[in-house]
Amino acid sequence: MPRLNAEATLRTMAEKKALVHHITNWVTINDCAQIVRHWGCLPVMAHAVDEVAEMVGLAGALVLNIGTLTPELVEAMLVAAKEANDRGVPVVVDAVGAGATRLRTNECRRLLEEAKVDILKGNAGEIATLAGVEAEVRGVESISVGGDVGGTAKALAATLGNVVAVTGESDVVSDGKRVFKIKGGHALMGRVVGTGCISTSTVGCFATAGGDLMERASEALACFGLAGERAAKSASGPGDFMGAFFNEIVRISERPTGVKFDVEESA
Amino acid sequence: MPRLNAEATLRTMAEKKALVHHITNWVTINDCAQIVRHWGCLPVMAHAVDEVAEMVGLAGALVLNIGTLTPELVEAMLVAAKEANDRGVPVVVDAVGAGATRLRTNECRRLLEEAKVDILKGNAGEIATLAGVEAEVRGVESISVGGDVGGTAKALAATLGNVVAVTGESDVVSDGKRVFKIKGGHALMGRVVGTGCISTSTVGCFATAGGDLMERASEALACFGLAGERAAKSASGPGDFMGAFFNEIVRISERPTGVKFDVEESA
Amino acid sequence: MPRLNAEATLRTMAEKKALVHHITNWVTINDCAQIVRHWGCLPVMAHAVDEVAEMVGLAGALVLNIGTLTPELVEAMLVAAKEANDRGVPVVVDAVGAGATRLRTNECRRLLEEAKVDILKGNAGEIATLAGVEAEVRGVESISVGGDVGGTAKALAATLGNVVAVTGESDVVSDGKRVFKIKGGHALMGRVVGTGCISTSTVGCFATAGGDLMERASEALACFGLAGERAAKSASGPGDFMGAFFNEIVRISERPTGVKFDVEESA
Repeated sequence: MPRLNAEATLRTMAEKKALVHHITNWVTINDCAQIVRHWGCLPVMAHAVDEVAEMVGLAGALVLNIGTLTPELVEAMLVAAKEANDRGVPVVVDAVGAGATRLRTNECRRLLEEAKVDILKGNAGEIATLAGVEAEVRGVESISVGGDVGGTAKALAATLGNVVAVTGESDVVSDGKRVFKIKGGHALMGRVVGTGCISTSTVGCFATAGGDLMERASEALACFGLAGERAAKSASGPGDFMGAFFNEIVRISERPTGVKFDVEESA
Repeated sequence: MPRLNAEATLRTMAEKKALVHHITNWVTINDCAQIVRHWGCLPVMAHAVDEVAEMVGLAGALVLNIGTLTPELVEAMLVAAKEANDRGVPVVVDAVGAGATRLRTNECRRLLEEAKVDILKGNAGEIATLAGVEAEVRGVESISVGGDVGGTAKALAATLGNVVAVTGESDVVSDGKRVFKIKGGHALMGRVVGTGCISTSTVGCFATAGGDLMERASEALACFGLAGERAAKSASGPGDFMGAFFNEIVRISERPTGVKFDVEESA
Repeated sequence: MPRLNAEATLRTMAEKKALVHHITNWVTINDCAQIVRHWGCLPVMAHAVDEVAEMVGLAGALVLNIGTLTPELVEAMLVAAKEANDRGVPVVVDAVGAGATRLRTNECRRLLEEAKVDILKGNAGEIATLAGVEAEVRGVESISVGGDVGGTAKALAATLGNVVAVTGESDVVSDGKRVFKIKGGHALMGRVVGTGCISTSTVGCFATAGGDLMERASEALACFGLAGERAAKSASGPGDFMGAFFNEIVRISERPTGVKFDVEESA
């Protein structure tokens, strides 16, 4: 059973204090910025096509989220992603709503074709859609998915030559060879809007530490789930969950000693 | 005195778990999404003119809010509203700031003329403006209004052939024939930004249950006020009111038994 | 040692209940609106180029924040600022990220050249950039700054004929003649995203009271720091700090008696 040494990654993140450049949606943009700060990185949200290349040049990771996409925003994403590729800055994409509309599916495919996306994240329906597997996506929720999630993620990651992370009750991460299953989290996380987006921002933060991105993405999701479990003990409901959750993120970030996880590996 | 059986509506909403598609403003977009989730529906925020028709085809209600409108955003709203009309998806419009600038007044009128708006919501000044009654609107606040609110709402609803909801210290809802007055709520609700917008999103959620939209809108506002009264008991000020309020929404949504209201009916 | 009578300003603000028109960024737009409400003023966020001139005509102050600027948004800012200048409405600019990209630096300079900016606010790196002093700005964070902050602020304010406020561990405010140093605040304020933006909105609120803008800006920052110190006692971490902070703002706004500050004046 592989062991994830998130402690070492958290220490590297705190030391680098890297900029995490987002081109993201207008719904959860504040939460995305907050969580980056809570992980000890520096958030910057910049989407003007005239500045994204310059901004990504200062960054340790680029996070692209199509939650409220327009064609213009995707143009800016492509400019930023190509510059990130040239500079070796890891690119993380959250495929919010792929499968729900043609625009989302097509623009997401365009991002995957025209740039190198180092880590692709989505729920089971979004990832299945991008893998060409039958799935029903309603709005930004995954309704039903054919096939086996781990196998779909592995095949898609192999095709794309990257890391694919599928979030859900358990999370699955694959680099096309290995498949890690990450348990943890709490039901309250699914009762508030934005946990999907901020888990992607979290993956972006962990990617700034460098090294094996399959491990970084897995550590990110494991730490995220741990914070959720802890926060659920102090929150009295979905209304005050996010504040409690952010406090737990800060605690993990500031006291990383012993933050390690055993993950299941499947074929 | 008419009795609103919100309990039945809440059960239908929970069962349908419908998508509530918003084209809304950038100030309260997160709160609007959160409250939809808290009522047991699924929020989706999508404003690209290329996808709104497809997205509304998946939805149980469409909520349009002009709080930070641009002409492009109103174009997307019109495309979505017409598609919603064709499909029988109820359209709810929040006339934020109508009367404050010509752009807001005119674009709001355009929405009302070019599409069927099933439920129009605003404060007294916004609704008076759209009814052609003398009113002073400063920014997004209603300052002074001529005439009687119930009468204005009734006349406007009769003209538009829809439901008009006017929120304020008491709320008034009319379908052009009946006028319901809905009491409740708490002064703290007026001390935070966003309660107007999220009450409109709430009306959108209740509209997904179908049936008499005059009753759905009234139940929505009554439940909203009830949550506000309850939240005021646990919040220590405006700064933590919204979290407490969201927790009360979840409680009403999850335990709807006995949630019924008597409302005053005026001529 | 000059004494700031914030009490009198707070009473004037409460009496005027002026509209504070923002053209701002999408990350902290909700917090900016909330804090305006908490200071007893009325927020309005409106950025359509077709309505900004009309909206600013209703306002007591205009706040421009380039945190997620695009060239189109800056056009709207210029239209609004010129109208504000013509009407004697104070214009406050937050130079978020000036120095990080050419777009931010250039558009910020354009605002300063083409309109009269009554109060310019930024962190040390942003203000140094605009003053032509060596500085490193990474994203929206000031990394290193040459020269002395007070001297830079004073020189820039003298050149621009306005008030320059530099926020940091201590804040510095200058009108080109005097330099005030404002202490206070708490380390937690730097651990959440948005305190910079909402301090600018706070300056906008205090500017609605009229009179000496050097004093209004200084009072705003002193009251802001006081609320931060108080909030740090009840918050359990960055996750619930903002709610506690907003509650303290409301307390200061509603009970202004005795809210006065002695500030250091340097040459």
